[in-house]
Amino acid sequence: MLFHSLTIVGVGLIGGSIGLAAKKRGVVQHVVGVGRDVDRLRKAQALGAIDAYTLDLPESARSADLMIFCTPVDRIADEVRLASAHCKPNTILSDAGSTKQAIVQAIESPGEAPVRFVGGHPLAGSEKKGCEHAHADLFVNRWTILTPTECTPGEAVERTVLFWEALGSCVRLLAPQEHDQALALTSHLPHLLAAALAGMLPDGMRELTATGFRDTTRVAAGDPDVWTPIFRHNREAVLDALGLFEERLRLFRNLLTNDYVPLLEKYLAQGKKVRDALGS
Amino acid sequence: MLFHSLTIVGVGLIGGSIGLAAKKRGVVQHVVGVGRDVDRLRKAQALGAIDAYTLDLPESARSADLMIFCTPVDRIADEVRLASAHCKPNTILSDAGSTKQAIVQAIESPGEAPVRFVGGHPLAGSEKKGCEHAHADLFVNRWTILTPTECTPGEAVERTVLFWEALGSCVRLLAPQEHDQALALTSHLPHLLAAALAGMLPDGMRELTATGFRDTTRVAAGDPDVWTPIFRHNREAVLDALGLFEERLRLFRNLLTNDYVPLLEKYLAQGKKVRDALGS
Repeated sequence: MLFHSLTIVGVGLIGGSIGLAAKKRGVVQHVVGVGRDVDRLRKAQALGAIDAYTLDLPESARSADLMIFCTPVDRIADEVRLASAHCKPNTILSDAGSTKQAIVQAIESPGEAPVRFVGGHPLAGSEKKGCEHAHADLFVNRWTILTPTECTPGEAVERTVLFWEALGSCVRLLAPQEHDQALALTSHLPHLLAAALAGMLPDGMRELTATGFRDTTRVAAGDPDVWTPIFRHNREAVLDALGLFEERLRLFRNLLTNDYVPLLEKYLAQGKKVRDALGS
Repeated sequence: MLFHSLTIVGVGLIGGSIGLAAKKRGVVQHVVGVGRDVDRLRKAQALGAIDAYTLDLPESARSADLMIFCTPVDRIADEVRLASAHCKPNTILSDAGSTKQAIVQAIESPGEAPVRFVGGHPLAGSEKKGCEHAHADLFVNRWTILTPTECTPGEAVERTVLFWEALGSCVRLLAPQEHDQALALTSHLPHLLAAALAGMLPDGMRELTATGFRDTTRVAAGDPDVWTPIFRHNREAVLDALGLFEERLRLFRNLLTNDYVPLLEKYLAQGKKVRDALGS
């Protein structure tokens, strides 16, 4: 057992899956869920994702050995700082937020008391929302990125690595900025494209869509309350990735307009090669 | 039984599924597959998608009551004209091509002998290729678009409608141009975006992708030999759809750059609403 008491702040798809995974694998003894909606917390408890719950974040911090914050990215830093003022000296605080630089900088801002915080981001999840979609194997064979800095105690990093590995995940360490630049391309840009494409579809054309449109727009079903703060946190890197994508579209426009057949084939084949390499 | 003998030209995912579906439902007595690769035709026969096969299109046309062309869109018109010179007077010729205007125009070009051709496009399929992925229920509850013109005999349209309905499909009639404009937005543009996005991914970032990137780029795994002629056939409509999409991206760029939070939320919510309405 790695930790006696785990506190999960925000028990949705990711938080609920962490609870189920940690309990199934015997990684923790006791899981406390923290949230703002008693009905949802009760449901998470009924599903076995948490053993107990509270609406009181400071109270939950007092007994925690590990706290993981799974709330929208614009709330994580404030919640971490609040919890850290009430937790034991050796409690580790970590998160599952889709952006890292803004969160880590806010938590490690000079002049504030140091926090035993390890930035984290499991690359798992879906467009679905809520603990009812959580499952204990969500992280198996998926990557979890941790983003320690020079302020992060090495022992806290090591134990957080062990925690995610115990949940079946592979762990990779990146600087917060590296994480955000990569995720701008691999996650945030795809979400923006899916939202733009879905939003273009006139009502009368819905029945003329097939699996291609549905796959390409699937992530657009994600919650705007989750995604708006992600785009705001990672604005510069998303705009950079968008610029590269717009350049690609100009290239394709040029190939189509001028009927450059061998080049069109080449770029379609290049996309296929990359996609084939990713697997299903 | 609607037709005695069905000939399927091009026995891949779509052609193979038509054969399996027609035989399972007793819609036809005998299915002949036509292709250029004996090994693939043998495999289709072993899978039960066709009863017999030949490499000789004119020969296959002689005994057919219904012929469906499932080859790449740049080959369909020539193959239809060749077959129609050898088939019985009342044989119906139809296709499953993803574009319609160029095919219908080439077949109905003035001065040529009239052909009993009904343009068709089942909105089913996937990025997968080959008869081994075919299945008998591929068309169930999916739309099939037929694009008859003033040259198309009404009886041929009616019997083609009945054929697709017997395979479980819902049928909708559109003008060839209407079909191509709609599909530019609902299928060809998504493919182009997926190919552009997949092609942008540096090798070292593959492991930093999750389900979002994989869903959004899934169709990019489609065969360039199939997709290049689709883009060429439907160039103008695809460029128009691309122009609308580029305009959407400029809007999102503007919202991000200027941090217009309520509008960003609004457009993300609009995309979510459309995507939610499409189902899974």
